[in-house]
Amino acid sequence: MIFTPQERDTLYRVIHQRRDIRHFSGGTVATDVLARIITAGHAAPSVGLMQPWRFIRITDRTVRQQLAAVVEQERLRTAEQMDQQHDDFMRLKVAGMDACAELLAVVLAPDDGTVFGRRTMPEAMALCSAACAIENMWLAARAENLGLGWVSFFEPQAVASLLHCPPEAQVIALLCLGPVTAFYDRPMLEAEGWRERVALDQVLTENSYPQDETIAR
Amino acid sequence: MIFTPQERDTLYRVIHQRRDIRHFSGGTVATDVLARIITAGHAAPSVGLMQPWRFIRITDRTVRQQLAAVVEQERLRTAEQMDQQHDDFMRLKVAGMDACAELLAVVLAPDDGTVFGRRTMPEAMALCSAACAIENMWLAARAENLGLGWVSFFEPQAVASLLHCPPEAQVIALLCLGPVTAFYDRPMLEAEGWRERVALDQVLTENSYPQDETIAR
Repeated sequence: MIFTPQERDTLYRVIHQRRDIRHFSGGTVATDVLARIITAGHAAPSVGLMQPWRFIRITDRTVRQQLAAVVEQERLRTAEQMDQQHDDFMRLKVAGMDACAELLAVVLAPDDGTVFGRRTMPEAMALCSAACAIENMWLAARAENLGLGWVSFFEPQAVASLLHCPPEAQVIALLCLGPVTAFYDRPMLEAEGWRERVALDQVLTENSYPQDETIAR
Repeated sequence: MIFTPQERDTLYRVIHQRRDIRHFSGGTVATDVLARIITAGHAAPSVGLMQPWRFIRITDRTVRQQLAAVVEQERLRTAEQMDQQHDDFMRLKVAGMDACAELLAVVLAPDDGTVFGRRTMPEAMALCSAACAIENMWLAARAENLGLGWVSFFEPQAVASLLHCPPEAQVIALLCLGPVTAFYDRPMLEAEGWRERVALDQVLTENSYPQDETIAR
């Protein structure tokens, strides 16, 4: 099928209005909406058609609380490494597990030995496939007018243990999903003065890597 | 802004019709179209707003030929590891560098030391950010009615050398982009009988990792 210019522009609006959300307003996500979002993730590309992603919906209140405690612990450990940025960091909201309607864990399955397309980069290509699934879900959530935030503040072994993952599975995300009162109009870290977006011409070159790269942290 | 159900459905059609394309029909990609696609990549989420992606547009014919040679070498090395699947593998088309209108390399920049959101998973979270950028570009290409294929058949050091990347940069993708005569109606590896898509209920559970996982390769 051919997409029209209007449909193309719709996709671009979703892409450019997607935000990493930390502020949720409670509520619920309808079953069919949640199914569409997860199905979008499962439609992602994967190297050698591995489909290495596993989605775990957290419905048990105790498990959610335990996961939130793991995230809070990591937030404090991160703060310890922030030096002069410590106070600014502690003012930021880095997770939305307190008020998100749904919480999903995304886990990279144990390596199934696929060689196709990943002989030279086995771990990276499996990881990238799972990340593509999450980006699909992120865009799907935005088009459903729901917020989604990828929380990566955790000790992966601690989360894996709470979710009874096999030894070689790797938890890569806790996704907070749900209604919001507002979408940020720009990345929260930019709005908070934490870091800026760089201009496109700083990340785009022809035929060779950018010379004299000077992107500030 | 609020997306309508029609706009939401448009996104889902793009997501479900996106394919990993190997068969291109030559031609060109207009400058403004290419700019929109790369801008969509640059609008991806990134951990700590690192924006670790670098996009290199390959316009030099010699460089493209050298990259194609690196890919062909890896294809043959992969075939050697395929055992009884060797002949089936050699019949597959695993790259589209012969006829794609545009060739882009995506490179993970050298680590900038960001701690935010990646203290426990520094490499994985940078990689995942770059993969989200590629998924955005993939969906953008589909909505522009162009094919895109992520080629990962290469020795990353060989590509890094050809593109003059700094020592700690990591090439993760060669993206073939351009007009096609047709989009596959299902993943090429599935259509070719190489591997099947798994049912959603095999990758989705509640509160704990799937028990007794039996997904076939």
